[in-house]
Amino acid sequence: MAIVQVTIVPLGTGTPSVGEYVAAIQRTLEEAPEKVRYQLTPMSTIVEGDLDDLLAVVRRLHEVPFKRGALRVSTSITIDDRRDKVGTMEQKMASVAENRKRL
Amino acid sequence: MAIVQVTIVPLGTGTPSVGEYVAAIQRTLEEAPEKVRYQLTPMSTIVEGDLDDLLAVVRRLHEVPFKRGALRVSTSITIDDRRDKVGTMEQKMASVAENRKRL
Amino acid sequence: MAIVQVTIVPLGTGTPSVGEYVAAIQRTLEEAPEKVRYQLTPMSTIVEGDLDDLLAVVRRLHEVPFKRGALRVSTSITIDDRRDKVGTMEQKMASVAENRKRL
Amino acid sequence: MAIVQVTIVPLGTGTPSVGEYVAAIQRTLEEAPEKVRYQLTPMSTIVEGDLDDLLAVVRRLHEVPFKRGALRVSTSITIDDRRDKVGTMEQKMASVAENRKRL
Repeated sequence: MAIVQVTIVPLGTGTPSVGEYVAAIQRTLEEAPEKVRYQLTPMSTIVEGDLDDLLAVVRRLHEVPFKRGALRVSTSITIDDRRDKVGTMEQKMASVAENRKRL
Repeated sequence: MAIVQVTIVPLGTGTPSVGEYVAAIQRTLEEAPEKVRYQLTPMSTIVEGDLDDLLAVVRRLHEVPFKRGALRVSTSITIDDRRDKVGTMEQKMASVAENRKRL
Repeated sequence: MAIVQVTIVPLGTGTPSVGEYVAAIQRTLEEAPEKVRYQLTPMSTIVEGDLDDLLAVVRRLHEVPFKRGALRVSTSITIDDRRDKVGTMEQKMASVAENRKRL
Repeated sequence: MAIVQVTIVPLGTGTPSVGEYVAAIQRTLEEAPEKVRYQLTPMSTIVEGDLDDLLAVVRRLHEVPFKRGALRVSTSITIDDRRDKVGTMEQKMASVAENRKRL
């Protein structure tokens, strides 16, 4: 179980807007056969699941802007992989909230 | 107006847990005198406001783990700065949702 | 052909030094059966080759700190994938130098 | 003393090439009044110096694509800040090479 943050940026599209691309990425996530959970944020997409599943999904997401005509894509990924305990998105948020109470 | 995504990782702390540090970062955000809006995600903190204000806040956040004893800190920042229109966190999410309907 | 920048950070190791881990990552790169070229920089490792080969290599590199005892690993990847022309590491550096002369 | 890795990407420029922008960034670095050392790699620019100086330089670099007409800029920064010892670019490379011999 790992969590991966992904940001995919098409270059040279002629418009600074990327909402169309992010929407297509979201649809690809919805249709993913792998068992992954995901969350969109204003800056990236966060996916959670088995690391190999996540990387397979990210690999497909990276193709999305090319399918829509982009000639160059910059994809940034951060993998948070913890193996001493299960680190889900909820567990991480709960840990911060718990620590926040004690400060 | 810009949006900045920040991830701050202390190195060599002896424990893989970072919840304590993220909670201290959250407290520093709450107490920030600058006019910034923020949102915590399972992988990063997203702040929105005037870019110079955001960078001043990020500069302080970067010090938080050092104040708690860390000897090395890796801070990753992504700035999304759009100047042809106002790009708030809500506007970005709404643009994706709008595009999603049309796909 | 793509270029991928990778930074792999072990968390909670008890020491802020990571040279040992980076050296092990370098050895893994040297032994990679895939046809990839690589370059170490003070902040990351840059690999060039077929994107699927690169991702397979990065997947193995991500395991290196775990094999050396790390319990949590944060791996950051940036993929630069250009499909209108061949974008090698040398071509990119040459393009910048060429543009620099004209400025 | 810190090391900062910076990647600056203009969005919506109409061409997937960014060599012109990177060259202008390099010129801005050469003209920087702050005492910073820098190194260009095929994927990013690495700067070394006092952290506040580095952030001031990065702030100016971020403006470069806007001055050349870009309407949106995505700037990614990674700060490596170590305070138990002096961590220069050379020291980091030497530490990896030293560890590599022992593996």
